[in-house]
Formats: sequence, C-alpha cells, structure tokens
Amino acid sequence: MEGLTKIDDLGQPRVVIVGGGFGGLELAKALADAPVQVVLLDRQNYHTFQPLLYQVATAGLEEGSIVSPFRKILGEQANFYFRLAEVKSVDAAAQILETTIGCLRYDYLVLATGTVPNYFGDAQMAKNSIALKSVEEAIELRNTILTNFEQALQLGDVEQLNSLLDFVIVGGGPTGVEIAGALSELRAHVFPKDYRELNFKEMDIHLVQSGPVLLKGMSAHASAKALEYLQEFGVQVWLDAKVKSYDGYHVVLSNGQQLIARTLIWAAGVTGAPITGLASVSLLKTNRYAVDGENRVQGYENVFAIGDIAQMSADAAFPDGHPQVAQPALQQGQHLAQNLKRLLAGQPTTPFKYYDQGAMATIGRNKAVADLKLFGRQFHLGGRLAWLAWGLVHVVALVGFRNRLAVLLNWAGSYLTQDKGLRYIIGSKKAVREEEVQEKALV
Amino acid sequence: MEGLTKIDDLGQPRVVIVGGGFGGLELAKALADAPVQVVLLDRQNYHTFQPLLYQVATAGLEEGSIVSPFRKILGEQANFYFRLAEVKSVDAAAQILETTIGCLRYDYLVLATGTVPNYFGDAQMAKNSIALKSVEEAIELRNTILTNFEQALQLGDVEQLNSLLDFVIVGGGPTGVEIAGALSELRAHVFPKDYRELNFKEMDIHLVQSGPVLLKGMSAHASAKALEYLQEFGVQVWLDAKVKSYDGYHVVLSNGQQLIARTLIWAAGVTGAPITGLASVSLLKTNRYAVDGENRVQGYENVFAIGDIAQMSADAAFPDGHPQVAQPALQQGQHLAQNLKRLLAGQPTTPFKYYDQGAMATIGRNKAVADLKLFGRQFHLGGRLAWLAWGLVHVVALVGFRNRLAVLLNWAGSYLTQDKGLRYIIGSKKAVREEEVQEKALV
Repeated sequence: MEGLTKIDDLGQPRVVIVGGGFGGLELAKALADAPVQVVLLDRQNYHTFQPLLYQVATAGLEEGSIVSPFRKILGEQANFYFRLAEVKSVDAAAQILETTIGCLRYDYLVLATGTVPNYFGDAQMAKNSIALKSVEEAIELRNTILTNFEQALQLGDVEQLNSLLDFVIVGGGPTGVEIAGALSELRAHVFPKDYRELNFKEMDIHLVQSGPVLLKGMSAHASAKALEYLQEFGVQVWLDAKVKSYDGYHVVLSNGQQLIARTLIWAAGVTGAPITGLASVSLLKTNRYAVDGENRVQGYENVFAIGDIAQMSADAAFPDGHPQVAQPALQQGQHLAQNLKRLLAGQPTTPFKYYDQGAMATIGRNKAVADLKLFGRQFHLGGRLAWLAWGLVHVVALVGFRNRLAVLLNWAGSYLTQDKGLRYIIGSKKAVREEEVQEKALV
Repeated sequence: MEGLTKIDDLGQPRVVIVGGGFGGLELAKALADAPVQVVLLDRQNYHTFQPLLYQVATAGLEEGSIVSPFRKILGEQANFYFRLAEVKSVDAAAQILETTIGCLRYDYLVLATGTVPNYFGDAQMAKNSIALKSVEEAIELRNTILTNFEQALQLGDVEQLNSLLDFVIVGGGPTGVEIAGALSELRAHVFPKDYRELNFKEMDIHLVQSGPVLLKGMSAHASAKALEYLQEFGVQVWLDAKVKSYDGYHVVLSNGQQLIARTLIWAAGVTGAPITGLASVSLLKTNRYAVDGENRVQGYENVFAIGDIAQMSADAAFPDGHPQVAQPALQQGQHLAQNLKRLLAGQPTTPFKYYDQGAMATIGRNKAVADLKLFGRQFHLGGRLAWLAWGLVHVVALVGFRNRLAVLLNWAGSYLTQDKGLRYIIGSKKAVREEEVQEKALV
C-alpha cells in the first residue's frame, strides 16, 4: 500500500512507538499526560505477557488470560492511537516510517521491537523446532504436545512411539527450565489419567544446556537448586552440551549422545529484531541498537530504543547491556517517557539508572528459585517460599484485574487438583503433522 | 491408513459412538457402569458447548471456558476409550467403521454426528459467509469482526468503510438473534471506546429472517419480545426476506433491498451430517436418519442415531422429529444408555419419551425471552427474569466446575463494566483478508 496512512494530526509532536511489549506499552501509558500524540504500532492487537507463555503451552492457562488488547488497556487515553501494522523500513532523514498500512511521519521514534529466536544460522533447526516467543507459538506447542499423545496411541513400534512421547528442550534459561518442569508435572499427574493406554515410563524429557549451569546469570544457589528440582522431577539434564543437528526426528548432541524426538523446543537464545533503514553502525553484533545513557540510538537525535532491542553500555554494572527481561524494558519505558516530557518542556534530560530487583524461575508445584534484591541486600530463596514469591510477582505484573483474577483462579484450581485442564487442540497444524507421522510410520 | 486401529479388546461388547456433542457425551458417561467398552470418536479432542459459541465470537468468553477435553471429562472412566479420528464410512454387514486412523470393529454403533450449516446448494454463500457451528468458526468470526475495525481506520471512501462496519446476519433463530444482540452491545458500549476515530452511527447490523417472525418455534410472546428488544438495540430486522445472492460484498435480498457488507454470518439452518455406507432408505430428505422409537436407525438392528442427526416420527407431539437443540440429544443419550444396558441384560427395552422443558434466547443485558414448561404449565418470560433464567440454565448445563466458574465470572465482570474484554486477534485468516481488502480498496 502506498501513500500516507490515515491518522489524525493533533498539531502536537508525534511519538511513534514500534512494538507493544513491556517497554513500548509502559512508555505509551506514561505519556498519557504529555503534550504529544502517541502512536503505537504492533503486529498484534494485544500485549503478550511473555513470562507465562510456557503455561499456555502446557495447558495451565488460557491464552486470553495472558494477553490484553491494546485498545482495552489504553483506548480511553485521549492522545493514544493504535495501528495494527508492521514496519517495513524507516527513513530517518525524512522522519518517515514505511509500514504495511502506508507511510507515517514521526517527530520521535521509539524502537521497542524486542527479540526473535536465535538459531545461529541453522535453517534446519529453525524449520523443525518450536520456539516460544508468541501466543501463536505457545498454542502450536500445546497442540503439538497433545496431538503427539493422540497419535502415539496408534503406534506399535517402540522407536516411533518414543519419538512422539519424548521431548527435547534446548536452552537452560528460565524458559527452558520452566517448560521442562511443566512437562514433567503433566507427565506425573495429568497425562497418565488421560492416556491410560500409554506407558509414561517411556516419556523422556531432555533439557540441553550449552554451559555448565542452568539459569546462567542467576546465583550459584539458584542454578544448583533448579538442577536438583528438575532431576527430582525426572528431567534428563544435559549440561555442557549443544545440539549439533536436528532433522525433525534425530537429535545429535555435541557430546555424541543421540536422541529421537519429533518435538524440539528451542529456547536457546534470542537476537534483536531490528528494523530496516537505520545506519548499520548503530546496530551491534547482538542485533541490538547501541544506545546512549538516555536510550537514544547512536547517531540519531530523535530515535530511541528501549527494552531487549536496546544495548546500553553506559551502565557500568552491565557493560554488555541489561538483561533481556521485563524489568529493564519497563524501567526504560517509564524513564524515556519522563525524558521526553522534559525535552518538550525544555528541561535537561537525565540518564537511565537500572534498579535490579533480582530474578526468579519456577520449576513446579512448591519448587522455584529466586534471587531477590531488597534494601540493597541479596536474598536467595528456594522451595515453597520462592514459588509463592514467583506467583505473587507474576500476578501483580499482569495487565488488568481480569487477567490477574483469571490466572490466580487457574493456579488455585491447578494447585488443589494437580490438574491442568486446558488440554484442547484448537486451530492447529495437526492435519499437516498427522500426514508427516503417517509417512514416517510407513517407512 | 489401512488395517485395524490399535485399541484394547476388553472381551466385552464394543459400543462405538461417533461424535461427542451433547448426545454422544451423555451416552458415553451414562454407560460408565455398563459391561461394555465405550469408544468415542470425534474430530476434536474436546466437547463444545455450542449454545455459547456466539459469546466467543463476540469477545465475551474465552474459547477455553466453553470447551472440555473428552479425556478430562471421562479419562478416569475405566471402560472409556477416546480416539481423535474422522469416520470415512461404515460397513454395517461386517460391523466395521473405516476411519482416518484405521478400521474399527463395533458391536453397537451410535451415530451422534449432529449437523452442518445448510447453504441450500449456494456454493458462493458457503464460500463467502461465516457459520457458527465450531469453536474454530467462532474464533474466525471474532478475528474477522476485530480486523474489520482495524482496517476501517485506514479507509476514507464511505462505501468501503461501511462494507467493513456493517454486518449481515442471516437466520432469525436463537443463534441469529443472539449474535445480533451481542453485536449491538459491542456497538453501544465497547467499540466506540476502542475506535474513537470511527463514527459508530455508520455501523449497521442487519438480521434477515425468511419467515414472518423471529424465533420460529417459540411462543408468539417470545417472538414479539425478541423483535422489540432487537429494534430497541437498533438492529435492522428484515422479516419475510431471504438472501438471493452474496458475493462477499454485495448482499441482495429477495425483497429487492441491496446491502453492502464484507461480513455475512450464516445462521439460516442446518442439515444432518450423515456418514457414508448406510442404506439410503434410512436417510430422510433432511439428511437425518429415520429412527424408531428407541433411536434405532431404520433397517438396522445394532445401529442407532441420537440428537440432531436422528429424526424420530414415533413421538406424536413431534411428527417431523424433535427440535435440533441440546435437550433431545441429552435425553436420547441418557435413554439409549439405559436401553443398551437392558438389551445386554436380556430385558425388554423402552421407547424414548421427550420431556420438553421449553426454549430460551437472550438478546442482551437484562433482555431475554423464555418459554418454560414447569409442572405441565407454560410460562412466558421476558426481560430480566428471562435473562437470569437463561444465564442460570446455561451455567448449570456447562461441563465442569472450572468452566462454570469461568463463565460466571466473565459474565459478572461484563455486567459490572459493560465491557467484553477478549478482543484479541489470534490465529486468524487476517493476512488473507487484508490482501482482499486492499485489492478491493484499489479497484
């Protein structure tokens, strides 16, 4: 589509935010009282609470409980405009974004595009594995897991059977650890009732981590506890191992181990999702934009980047940039809003300062790890206390009362019944997969 | 796939039920204590509570709240087996079903396949309209409605704009009436906040009914009240009108009226969904199986049909068969289970007797109609009382505590806030539709 996109001109500076993740959404909200027009562009019409995607994938939560339509959150904010669109490129000299719905002029551009899975150039892996960055991927994974078991009922051959029952998770960060834990809970409490005809001793869950510890970046206490919990749950953890190749069936590890699995979950790292058109010098090798201490993209006056896509080396505590999690994004969104207001008021802007509140990951019922920073001190929690802290933090961080209540009630129900009830296959690529399995089964 | 499907042989008679709607599911449950193996086949792994599909389509409920996985409901019933499969044909002489997962022997076959939309041979209508018989269709409709408004923001041409904002619903039965009411509530309370840039005076909702009254089959009181409520809500009701043609854009009515709409919802009737292989004499013109007073398909000893797909003329009160709603299906499922147990015990079977409890439909907040039969007397309710009765009956009829609570809380929330929060576009055919709109927009 050519030409300018149709949008009101408020006669005020226009701030265009690309991406409504934690950073972009927080910025849009915090600009509510600023004398600017806020235009948010996103490929989805909703914000995704990514930390709980893995629970959607493992039938613990409905997708509706972790997404919030942007218009529902901000529809009544007078200076807020949303457009369902993808950015094709930016012309920074002309201050114009080219998008799938036409061209859009901006006064300030804020890139909050986040990350995409990093396959390190392995196209076969990209094709055959499932990542967990979007609601649609979480639904695909849920459908895949459930379809695997339905199909397994029809197979007599042991290797074929195991290829459907076994799961390989690559990446020992929070997502990998949490998925492995959730799958092992399904194996222990849910699937044996659903599939009495299958022998769940045959179901193996492999977690492959390239380094020597899980949850790299958290404390040694957290790493050790996470490993202990996963092993208690019967997850096979492969440390210091990488996946050399995966053809959709055979998994070859760097330590020589060979596994068979039709389902490989890729949680082994991310890379920035930059847009086309900015000077290549501003983009680092991590595909993140080099930003100054105020989140300004290197070489530009009115282009900013926040969250996962921004790499700020000015913060001495984080020379390689802040961790790519929700907290820095939220804080940068909030801080940039204040700086933009200062700019517009002719006041001096202030540098961003990150308040690290710690990190946490949950493995299963009553089993989590947390490194908390409170009053300048570090606390390392494990077990039920960490698990309660994790739950509390995530419920509070969710957007909106409805989703908080829905998640809380689902969790309460799961806790009481040990059940995860959302085991439906809706809108899947099932049909395709069925043919695949049949082909392989006939070989 | 060739060969026999892999399934335990319990050495007991095998009852194969095709379809897990209201009738099939009730039958499977009621056979829990019978000396038979129960095999349920369905194309989905979940039961759908069809009466609330329209609320999923209009962002009032999550799909997860109205579906229940069969294995969750019945996984612990010892004689229950589920298979995700489609039936290709039946060989009644050999007592074998051919399915997408192989052949399956049966001792008793129960067809509970329900209905599909009836387009009366209009292939163009089938292609261009959206029906509302499955969760996937409800999600498609929700995505379509929301995508329409996102796209409308980009259009300047008035006709193009109206083609996206206007909705045509064909069929004045409960589904048509309920969808029209729900859309008018979205127009009154939700969309104007979401899309401040659009003028909702431009949004028209048309309900086209072929006969002289809405809710045919209900009382004159209910028909009149439904019409009154819809007109209060600003729905344009076209009585005694049929759609002559629809090309995806132009709607031509039999009364000469021409409408423009990219979205036409087809709720104008259903036809049975029979399977291949039974004698054609057993299938009536309605595509329903002719069954005797015990739901036995005409001409067969051990093949039964229940629910929408069965047409029983033995019941003098319903010479054209029972209404194609949940109640007859539930009662026939229950009754057939008792008869099968009697058969196996060598006892005489008993004829089915339908207890008509009435019918109801809701139009919106505090506005519903209900014809109830209690203690042999008829009661015609309207307004808030009917609305509360409708809500109570539907919550009680839902499968499982979790879904009842979820629906109740969603309704309470919607009632208090006048909001319908599930306005997300997930897993849609959006991309395709966008191209379509762009093509038409460029013409």
